[in-house]
Amino acid sequence: MEPLYRKYPIFIENSLTGKKEIFLPVSDGRVGMYVCGPTVYSDVHLGNARTFTSYDFMFRYFKHLGYQVRYVRNITDAGHLENDADEGEDKIAKKARIEQLEPMEIVQRYTVDFHEVMEKINALPPSIEPTATGHIVEQIQMIKTIIENGWAYQSNGSVYFDVENYNTKGGDYGVLSGRKLEDLQSGSRALDGQEEKKNAADFALWKKASPEHIMRWPSPWSEGFPGWHLECSAMSTKYLGEQFDIHGGGMDLKFPHHECEIAQNVASSGHKGAKYWLHTNMLTLNGKRMSKSTGNAILPKELFTGQNPLLSKGFNPSTVRFFMMQAHYSSILDFSDDALMAAEKGHDKLLGAIETLSKLQPSESSTYNVQDWVDRCYIALSDNFNSPILISHLFEAVKFINSCTDLSIGLSKGDLQLLTEKMNCFAFDVLGLRKEESSDSHKEALNKAMDLVIELRAKARDNKDWDTADIIRKQLTEAGIQLKDGADGTSYTL
Amino acid sequence: MEPLYRKYPIFIENSLTGKKEIFLPVSDGRVGMYVCGPTVYSDVHLGNARTFTSYDFMFRYFKHLGYQVRYVRNITDAGHLENDADEGEDKIAKKARIEQLEPMEIVQRYTVDFHEVMEKINALPPSIEPTATGHIVEQIQMIKTIIENGWAYQSNGSVYFDVENYNTKGGDYGVLSGRKLEDLQSGSRALDGQEEKKNAADFALWKKASPEHIMRWPSPWSEGFPGWHLECSAMSTKYLGEQFDIHGGGMDLKFPHHECEIAQNVASSGHKGAKYWLHTNMLTLNGKRMSKSTGNAILPKELFTGQNPLLSKGFNPSTVRFFMMQAHYSSILDFSDDALMAAEKGHDKLLGAIETLSKLQPSESSTYNVQDWVDRCYIALSDNFNSPILISHLFEAVKFINSCTDLSIGLSKGDLQLLTEKMNCFAFDVLGLRKEESSDSHKEALNKAMDLVIELRAKARDNKDWDTADIIRKQLTEAGIQLKDGADGTSYTL
Repeated sequence: MEPLYRKYPIFIENSLTGKKEIFLPVSDGRVGMYVCGPTVYSDVHLGNARTFTSYDFMFRYFKHLGYQVRYVRNITDAGHLENDADEGEDKIAKKARIEQLEPMEIVQRYTVDFHEVMEKINALPPSIEPTATGHIVEQIQMIKTIIENGWAYQSNGSVYFDVENYNTKGGDYGVLSGRKLEDLQSGSRALDGQEEKKNAADFALWKKASPEHIMRWPSPWSEGFPGWHLECSAMSTKYLGEQFDIHGGGMDLKFPHHECEIAQNVASSGHKGAKYWLHTNMLTLNGKRMSKSTGNAILPKELFTGQNPLLSKGFNPSTVRFFMMQAHYSSILDFSDDALMAAEKGHDKLLGAIETLSKLQPSESSTYNVQDWVDRCYIALSDNFNSPILISHLFEAVKFINSCTDLSIGLSKGDLQLLTEKMNCFAFDVLGLRKEESSDSHKEALNKAMDLVIELRAKARDNKDWDTADIIRKQLTEAGIQLKDGADGTSYTL
Repeated sequence: MEPLYRKYPIFIENSLTGKKEIFLPVSDGRVGMYVCGPTVYSDVHLGNARTFTSYDFMFRYFKHLGYQVRYVRNITDAGHLENDADEGEDKIAKKARIEQLEPMEIVQRYTVDFHEVMEKINALPPSIEPTATGHIVEQIQMIKTIIENGWAYQSNGSVYFDVENYNTKGGDYGVLSGRKLEDLQSGSRALDGQEEKKNAADFALWKKASPEHIMRWPSPWSEGFPGWHLECSAMSTKYLGEQFDIHGGGMDLKFPHHECEIAQNVASSGHKGAKYWLHTNMLTLNGKRMSKSTGNAILPKELFTGQNPLLSKGFNPSTVRFFMMQAHYSSILDFSDDALMAAEKGHDKLLGAIETLSKLQPSESSTYNVQDWVDRCYIALSDNFNSPILISHLFEAVKFINSCTDLSIGLSKGDLQLLTEKMNCFAFDVLGLRKEESSDSHKEALNKAMDLVIELRAKARDNKDWDTADIIRKQLTEAGIQLKDGADGTSYTL
């Protein structure tokens, strides 16, 4: 059978060219995708959670279409300095210093936390999850190659990428972000540590560690640590090759991080790395930029528990995911309690309709063009992963499903099967929603049902209705539910 | 307040000395503990799950006593060759070759699986979880040091530890396992690859990669990979220092793995690494050695789901953990369906009594010596982590708690508080049992309770008992439970 990706070819908005292009993988039937993962020095940020949910959605769609996907999402556990610049303390080492822990204890704590949040939001584990500290050897090798190729220079034990030289000799630093080298060269020269660089736009490939810097490795240049941008070039090359398909990350990483990655890739291999560079947009909270200092901030975990003054209640992770998917990955997404409430209604309506659909009986003939609907859903998904359009199509189907109480409306057996299969597949496999088998909701309902049973039992006893009392006793015993009469009333245990 | 570890000092059976010794940490109030983790090339083995559960129990007890613990458990993702020997294919690379995946995809899949099982069995994440591939630089450094110190030699691009030379110059290879070097030197000489070694007992620190070996790194000696034993020496030294407290692993690792670790530690730093070496014992299944080939095998996941012909049903992970804790870590543990069934009864009885305890009212005075019981529990725990004795003490308390229906038996307010606190702490914090908020059990109970409610409603309607029917209708609405009368009877939805 022809794979789905031939029937519904994908078009991707490529940040590198600024155009929407047809997706043609380097190797037929396979997708190599690299996404810049979190720096694990604090609880995972809601913006990051959105970014990784977006790429998880793409990962799911590629797989659904029949591609064999290798999805690499790294963990940054060293080299990411404060303010994303070439100077300042390592983010993880700083947290470790404050908490009096070994840096790798910080890494472990927040990696575990990150994985918990990803599991809750139903993001599949990537195929490979490499770490920066796990690839020191590969990074040193890449620096050697870049120096050999003439695009980097040593200075005081550190190694810098020579941006001006690179661009003079045909490189195109700025190609992704659209920034002009002459603008970048002016300005920040006066910053601490810049005196080691030939030019302000140069960036570190290797930094000599200051005496108090604890995360350090030997290298041909100094005891030190790799520059932040380097790990992604080294790891994407190792696991996906010099030329691969998709590179993703948040929009805030476009410059300098991804710009530098491309320059490093070209300087070491002659290739830019990925063919398609994707960027997810930012999010706001109640219309404003999130910021801890002003209190306009929320963590993914708080969304789930409701433990944040900006929320009226907790939202189940599938609702939060649905809310994210309602916006296109390239649009700004505004979080608010009201918007989440509305998303919850939509989410429950969608899942309710899928439940209803599972109970529908086939009719003689169809009053809905299911195949056309299926095509429109795929076309939306393949059009730069347009989840909001997909969701609007899903709600068209919800409307139809809910109208099936009318006997003049219905689906043939084949159409019913097709609609059932595709509704489930789009909602659960591709969008990644999840029916919550919430133990809480069952427990709560059980408590209330048992309150009722206990009341009916008391009533039956008062009325000397021994038959009813007997039924209750017998069936509860069979169900493994024990009643205990106490001074404070009757309680039950399982 | 004096920390608990002063009141109840720990005694540990030290494999290195063969004696039970008082535990005196290198640094007062702190514990550094290293445990050899899994090689992630297949589903985690039940034996491994038992080993890691045992060390999790010790980790929990150290923390409970007030120690600040750094618990390092590694992930072996390279260098572990078939048959635990110096020749043969890398276990992970072999699996990757068979499944046509990148080795790191294998590592990711089974690391995720391992973490899932650990989470189910309520094993806390260790403080640091380092990987072999993440410490190539550190391993190369350690080899350099060992060569400089004269205890290793190069041969054809590989580096071997010179066991005979080490023992001639005062080393004591064999100190842990009790094996004699002269016995080890004979025998295995004829094996493939042994011709590179001076003596049969020598072991690899670095192996030159054969052309088809895909997991390889540059080194001063060859493109290759570190020997399996080296990673644990390098990582324990990096994160816990040259002298630390506890080193743990399964008994099967005592020789050659731990014996080689000690030799490497001494050869690079002059110290043996840990002061106390601990070994957990093996497990059997229905009295026989587990073996996939004979079908006498079971996976941790299968224990939870019951999907194995040797099991009559699934057991909740807390029951499995309780079952493991009923045996001392240094005893052989035999798994069987009957034994798990018995453990389930014990587990539920213990947790039921803790529930009962929470509802007990204080009496004027106590008829049970709670402080004496508390002391005996701690003494059991501190006596080489004797979980079976602890559990027998817990059941003494269970018996007492369940006898409290007799009004002549009871506890003063202070004693009731103390018993409640300590029962919870021993069962949940230290043994690591977990009250299962099983959505399944609540859902099942809810189904049965609702069957009963539906029957009572039908009965009330038949009897024209409109008052009862009304109560049922009203309370279900309040509870958010909807009844639907259909052709197949009445069903409910939340």
